Amino acid sequence: MNTNNWQLSAPGVWRLTIREPKAITPLSWMEVSPKEEALQQMPQVKPPFDWDSIQLEEAGESLILSFPLDRTEKLYGTGLQLLRMNQRGRNRYLRVNSDPKQDTGETHAPVPFYVSDLGYGVWVDTSRIVTIYCGSTLKQEDTHSEAIRDRNTDRGWIATPVASRVEIRIPAEGAHVYLFGGPTLADVVSRYNLFGGGGVLPPKWGLGFWHRVPTMYNEQQVLEEAEQFRLHDVPCDVIGLEPGWHSHSYPVTYEWEKSRFPKPGQFVEKLAQKGFRVNLWEHPFVSPNSEMYADLQPLSGSHTVWGGLAPDYSLTEAASLYKKQHEEQHVDIGVSGYKLDECDGSELTNNSWMFPGHAKFPSGLDGEQMRQMYGLMFQKMTADLFRSKNRRTYGLVRASNAAASTMPYVLYSDLYDHKQFIRALCNSSFSGLLWTPEVRRARNAEDWVRRMQTVCFSPLAMLNAWGDGTKPWSFPEVEEVVRHYIKLRMRLLPYLYTAFAKYREQGIPPFQAMPFVMSPSEIAAAEAKLVEAEQQMLNTTDAAYGKKKVREWDDQFMVGDALLIAPLVEGETEREVLLPVGIWYGLETGERYTGGCIVRVQAGLERIPVFVKSGAVIPMMPSLPHVPASGTQVPLELVHFGTEPGEGLLYDDDGETFNYEDGTCSWRKLTVTQHADGQYAGELTGNSEEWTSYRGVTWRFSQTRLA
Amino acid sequence: MNTNNWQLSAPGVWRLTIREPKAITPLSWMEVSPKEEALQQMPQVKPPFDWDSIQLEEAGESLILSFPLDRTEKLYGTGLQLLRMNQRGRNRYLRVNSDPKQDTGETHAPVPFYVSDLGYGVWVDTSRIVTIYCGSTLKQEDTHSEAIRDRNTDRGWIATPVASRVEIRIPAEGAHVYLFGGPTLADVVSRYNLFGGGGVLPPKWGLGFWHRVPTMYNEQQVLEEAEQFRLHDVPCDVIGLEPGWHSHSYPVTYEWEKSRFPKPGQFVEKLAQKGFRVNLWEHPFVSPNSEMYADLQPLSGSHTVWGGLAPDYSLTEAASLYKKQHEEQHVDIGVSGYKLDECDGSELTNNSWMFPGHAKFPSGLDGEQMRQMYGLMFQKMTADLFRSKNRRTYGLVRASNAAASTMPYVLYSDLYDHKQFIRALCNSSFSGLLWTPEVRRARNAEDWVRRMQTVCFSPLAMLNAWGDGTKPWSFPEVEEVVRHYIKLRMRLLPYLYTAFAKYREQGIPPFQAMPFVMSPSEIAAAEAKLVEAEQQMLNTTDAAYGKKKVREWDDQFMVGDALLIAPLVEGETEREVLLPVGIWYGLETGERYTGGCIVRVQAGLERIPVFVKSGAVIPMMPSLPHVPASGTQVPLELVHFGTEPGEGLLYDDDGETFNYEDGTCSWRKLTVTQHADGQYAGELTGNSEEWTSYRGVTWRFSQTRLA
Repeated sequence: MNTNNWQLSAPGVWRLTIREPKAITPLSWMEVSPKEEALQQMPQVKPPFDWDSIQLEEAGESLILSFPLDRTEKLYGTGLQLLRMNQRGRNRYLRVNSDPKQDTGETHAPVPFYVSDLGYGVWVDTSRIVTIYCGSTLKQEDTHSEAIRDRNTDRGWIATPVASRVEIRIPAEGAHVYLFGGPTLADVVSRYNLFGGGGVLPPKWGLGFWHRVPTMYNEQQVLEEAEQFRLHDVPCDVIGLEPGWHSHSYPVTYEWEKSRFPKPGQFVEKLAQKGFRVNLWEHPFVSPNSEMYADLQPLSGSHTVWGGLAPDYSLTEAASLYKKQHEEQHVDIGVSGYKLDECDGSELTNNSWMFPGHAKFPSGLDGEQMRQMYGLMFQKMTADLFRSKNRRTYGLVRASNAAASTMPYVLYSDLYDHKQFIRALCNSSFSGLLWTPEVRRARNAEDWVRRMQTVCFSPLAMLNAWGDGTKPWSFPEVEEVVRHYIKLRMRLLPYLYTAFAKYREQGIPPFQAMPFVMSPSEIAAAEAKLVEAEQQMLNTTDAAYGKKKVREWDDQFMVGDALLIAPLVEGETEREVLLPVGIWYGLETGERYTGGCIVRVQAGLERIPVFVKSGAVIPMMPSLPHVPASGTQVPLELVHFGTEPGEGLLYDDDGETFNYEDGTCSWRKLTVTQHADGQYAGELTGNSEEWTSYRGVTWRFSQTRLA
Repeated sequence: MNTNNWQLSAPGVWRLTIREPKAITPLSWMEVSPKEEALQQMPQVKPPFDWDSIQLEEAGESLILSFPLDRTEKLYGTGLQLLRMNQRGRNRYLRVNSDPKQDTGETHAPVPFYVSDLGYGVWVDTSRIVTIYCGSTLKQEDTHSEAIRDRNTDRGWIATPVASRVEIRIPAEGAHVYLFGGPTLADVVSRYNLFGGGGVLPPKWGLGFWHRVPTMYNEQQVLEEAEQFRLHDVPCDVIGLEPGWHSHSYPVTYEWEKSRFPKPGQFVEKLAQKGFRVNLWEHPFVSPNSEMYADLQPLSGSHTVWGGLAPDYSLTEAASLYKKQHEEQHVDIGVSGYKLDECDGSELTNNSWMFPGHAKFPSGLDGEQMRQMYGLMFQKMTADLFRSKNRRTYGLVRASNAAASTMPYVLYSDLYDHKQFIRALCNSSFSGLLWTPEVRRARNAEDWVRRMQTVCFSPLAMLNAWGDGTKPWSFPEVEEVVRHYIKLRMRLLPYLYTAFAKYREQGIPPFQAMPFVMSPSEIAAAEAKLVEAEQQMLNTTDAAYGKKKVREWDDQFMVGDALLIAPLVEGETEREVLLPVGIWYGLETGERYTGGCIVRVQAGLERIPVFVKSGAVIPMMPSLPHVPASGTQVPLELVHFGTEPGEGLLYDDDGETFNYEDGTCSWRKLTVTQHADGQYAGELTGNSEEWTSYRGVTWRFSQTRLA
C-alpha cells in the first residue's frame, strides 16, 4: 500500500488521503479555510519524517497508519483529556463521551490530533471514531529482549518496553490525514489552528464574569439575582438560564415558558439595561410540544432520546428550521448566546441519554458519525446565526471535535475535580479548544476560593449555580478574595483580549500548557535542579510492584505570553512551580524569582500564585460592574514589570461585531525603554485611528507587584 | 431479510444463523455438547415469541437483531456485571475488560447472554464484541408522545420512555443466535447451562479454604505460612503461589525459580503431606527467557505485551507446547491447578497490558477475537490437561465468556468493593459463571469479618494475601468469628458439593440470585408489604431532577436450595432481606420468619444472616483441618429444620477424579417424616454402593438453629 503519497496542503502542512473518505468531516462541515497568509509567515519547515518511515497496513476492515516514535518523545493533545497531559503510552479511543471518568481517551471533545514535543503533529480528519495508540503497542519485530524487565526483581519495571511507533486505527472508509510541521510544539499547534481558520475572538463581554441561575427560576428571580451582583459589587456580564426557561425540557421545545417568562423580549431588555447579557441553555432533542416537531420529524434520526427527535442537522432544511426558530425567538430579542448541553452522550456510559451508534439519519450518516459531529453542528449553526447579524456570540458547549478553533464556544463538564479541571485547561491548548473550569458548589470556603481563583484565569469565568444556587458571596469569610479576583480579571481584560486576538490572527492559544513555552531540554534541565529526589511510591496491594511518579506539569499554564498561573487546590498551601528561564515576579507578592528551575511557593487562601515575566508590559483597565458597551471609552493603565526594558501589545476593536475583519481594529505596541539616567519611558505606537476603547494612559514602570 | 429461519437446536432451544459466522466461537472452542437427556427432562416449552416479532435489519456493516420487550420486564445476565443486576435500560457493550469501573457492560466475563424474568433467554455465540441495548433505545415509530414526560415539572421523569425492544448489534460477519425457553427464569438458565454441557463439579478440596501467599515468597516461607494454618486451627486446603514462583514474570516463563524453589517436586509433596494443594499464578505473555519462546514465536500474535509473546492458542501446535510444558513442570509434580491472570486486558483502560484489537494472529484471528476468547482458551487448555490425568482441577481465572459452565474456574477481580463483589456473586448465576468475592486487605476488623463471612458462602473461599500478607488471624479481636465461618463452610461441604452436583447434572447454579427462586409477582408482592415508602432521593447538583431508588435485591443469594445468605458490609448492623414464601429460620439464631415479605434483621459482627428453609435437610460433616483425601470416611450429620416433614439430597463420589462419569458416585435422598406421636424419623435412601465418603449417620430433627 503506497503511503508516500503525501501532498503539501498548506505551508508546513502535508496531507495523505487514505481510501475514499466520506464527505462529511470536521473540516468539511466547519467550512473553514486555512489562514494562508499567517501560515506563510511561519518558519519554513521540512517534513518531520522520512516518508518511508510512515507505514500503512490493513487490519481487518480498518487500516493502521503508523509513525516512528523517539525514545523519550512525549505526545500531547488528542482533545480535551481530563486525566493526563502526556498521552505517551496510552491508547486514546477518541469517542465523544459526556462522562469520561476513566482514562480511555474518551472525552467531550475527542480530537484526533496529537502533537509531539519533537515538533510535529498528526491529525485524522474524519467523522468517525479514531483510536490512537500513543506508543502503547509493541510489535514482535520491534521488541528487543534486552529491554524487557522482570517485574519480580526490577523496581524500574514498566508495563511497556519503550514502543517505537504510534499506531493509528483509521476508519474502514478511509480518512484524510494531515501532518503538521514545527519546528517547535507551539508552531505545530499554531499551524493546526491556522489551518482550521485561526482562533476565535470572543466579544469583550464574554471575557467578563458569568453567572448561571438555578433551574426553574422565573423572570423575577433572575432579575433579583442579577441585581444582587451590582449590590455586592461583584462584576457580572452574563446571566445564564438553565432548564426551566423553556416550556418543556428533556425533550426540549426551545420556546419560552410563558408562566415563568411572560415577556421574554422585555426581560432580556431589562437585563441589558443593567449591563447583563442573557445566555440560554438547550440541548439537541426536540419535544413533540415544539412548534418545529412536525417539520423536523422526517428530517430526524431513527431513534429518539427521552422521546425527543434527534434532528439531522447535516440537512440544510433541518438546520434552517433550527436557525429560524432560534433567530426569531432568541437572537432577535437580544439573547447573546447558548449553552449547548447533552450533545456528547456516549453509548457506553450514557445509555438512553444518546441515540445508539446504529441509528440511521436521513442524510445517510449513522449514529456514530452524528455523535462525533453533533457538538460541531450546533456550534456552527448558532455561530453562523449570530454572524449573519454581525454580532459576536460566546457560549458553552459540551461536545467538540477538530477544526473548532474559530468557534465562539468554551467546553465544560459535569465532572468536578478541580485538578482535572486545571489539567483540562492545559490540555485544551494543544487541540484548538477552549475550556472553563466552571465553579459550582464547594465543599467549604477553601475549595470555593481555590476554584474561583482558577476560573478567573480561564477562557470563561463562570459560576454555574444551576443545581445549588451558590453565589460569589456564598462564603462570606472569603467573599472579599473572590471579589478581588473577579475584579482582577476585568482589570486584565485588555491583556486577555489581546491574547485572543493573537489566537485569531496567529493561531497562538491564549491559554497554554507549559510545553508551549519550554522545550523538552529546558524542562529536563529545570527538573534536574530539583533537590528533592523523586519519590518511589509503593502500595503493596494496589500496585504491588511499585510505581514511579512522573510529574507532568499539568497544573500550571500561561495566560498570554507574560503571565504564568499556578493554581492551588483545597488542602494546599504551597506547591512546586516550573518556571521558564528568565526573571519572574509574583504578580501580587512582588517576590522575585529566577526561572529555569522549579520553585516552591507558598500562598494563603487570599492568593493564587501568578507570575509575571520581567520586562512584560501588561495593558489593564479599571474594574467596572460589567464590560462597557462598544464606544464607551475607559482609562488605560500600562504596567511594566522588572528592571529590563520591555514591550507588549494591545489589540482593540469594538468588541461586539465582526467589523474588525474589515480593518476596524487596532494593534498597538507598548514599548518601555530606559534612559541613561535610569528613568523609564513608555511609548504607545501603532494606529489607534481604526479603533480605541481607551482614553487617557497611565504608565507604571519597573513594578514588582500589581498595585 | 428473513429472520424467521429459527431452527430447533435442542429441547426448548432454537437457533438462528445470521450471515456466515466465523468458525471459532465460545461454543465451538469449548467443544461441549448439550446434555440432551437432562434437557429432555425439562418442561416442554413453546417459543417465547411470535417469530414475526423478531426483526433483523442492516446498520452499516453490522446487523441489528431486535426482540420485543414487555413494559415491566427485567433483564438479567450479560455476564459478570459488577454494577447492577437488572440490565434493563442499559447498553451492554460486551467487551472483556479487567478494570470495569464504569457501568458500560464491559467486564472480565462479558457473556452475550441475557435472561428475562418473563422466562426466556437470548445468546449470541461469537468471538466478537456484541452490544446489547437492553431497552435503552427507542425508535421514532415506537415513541409515543403521551409517554414523554417533562423533566421541568415531572418528578417521575426518567431518561427513557419505556422502550419496547431489545436491540442487539450483531458483528458484521454474522453469528449464531440462540433463544432459550423457560417457562421460568431458572429453567432458562438451566437450559443455557445444559446446552453448554452442564455445570462443573469441582474437586472436594476446591471447596475448602484457600490462601494465597505474598509475592516473592520462597519455599521455606510458604511452608511456614501453611503450618501456621494448622497451628491456628484454621482449615486450609489450597495454598496459592503468586508472582515470584517462576523465574521471570511480566512477561512470564512458567518455569520455577530455582533460588526460591530449588526442588519444586519435593516442595509440592511436603505440602501434600500436610493436606495442602498448590495452585500456581500465571498469565498469558511469554518471556524470552522461557524455554518455549523460540517455538512459540512463529505461533504468536503480531504484538507483544510487556515484551512477551501473545501465543495463538487456537493453533494446536501452540496449545500442545503450552500443555506439555505445564504437564511436565507443574501437573506431573502434583500442582493442583492455576490462577489465570491478566487474560482480560482491555484496549480502553488497560493500554499496554494487552495487545491491541488490530493485532494479527497466525490463525487469522485478530486482537479483538483473541481478547474475547483468551480466558476461555486458558481454561480449556488447563482443564483438558488435568482431565487427561483423570484428576479434577479447580482454579481462578480473570476472563471468561459464554459456554464456560463446565469449566473448573472461578472468576475474580482486582476491584474490591464488597457490595459489588456480592452483586457479582448474584449476577454470575445468570450466565453460567462462578465468582469469588476474594478477601485481601481490610480497612479494619469489621470490614475484615464481613468480607470473610461473605467469601465463606461463595464458590471459592479464599484469602488472597498476595500484596498485603494478611492472614485469617490478622485481626485478633475477630479471629474466632473468622475461624467459625471457615469451619462452618467445611461442615457444609456435603451440602455444597451436592449443590454443585445438581449444577453438573441439571444445570442448576449452586449459587443463585433471588429471581431464580421468586417470580416477578412474588417479588412485587413481598415489596408491596414493605411498610416504609420508597424514598425519593434528591441531590440538586449531582442529579438535580431527582432519582427514584429501585431496590434490586442484588445483595442476597441462595446457596443450594435451602440456604439464603444476606451478607452485611462494613458499617451495617442490620439490613432488609427479601424472604421467599414459607417458613424460615435464622441458621444460627433460631429466629423464626414467615416469608413472602421483606424482613429486617440485625446481626452483630459475629453473625452473617443465613436463613434455612423449614423442612430442609442439610447434610453436614465435621470441620477438619482440610478436606480428607479420597477414600477417607468421615461422620455424616443430617440436620432437619422446622416442624414440617422434609427432604434433601446427598451426592457423593471420590471427590478427585472423573470416575463419577462412569457411575462411581451416589445420589441419596434424605427424608424426614413425622409419626403420629409427633416423633420424627429420618431415612437415607438411594444406592451408596457406588460411593460413600461417610461412616455413621447422626440425625437431628426439628432444629431451629445449628448446634
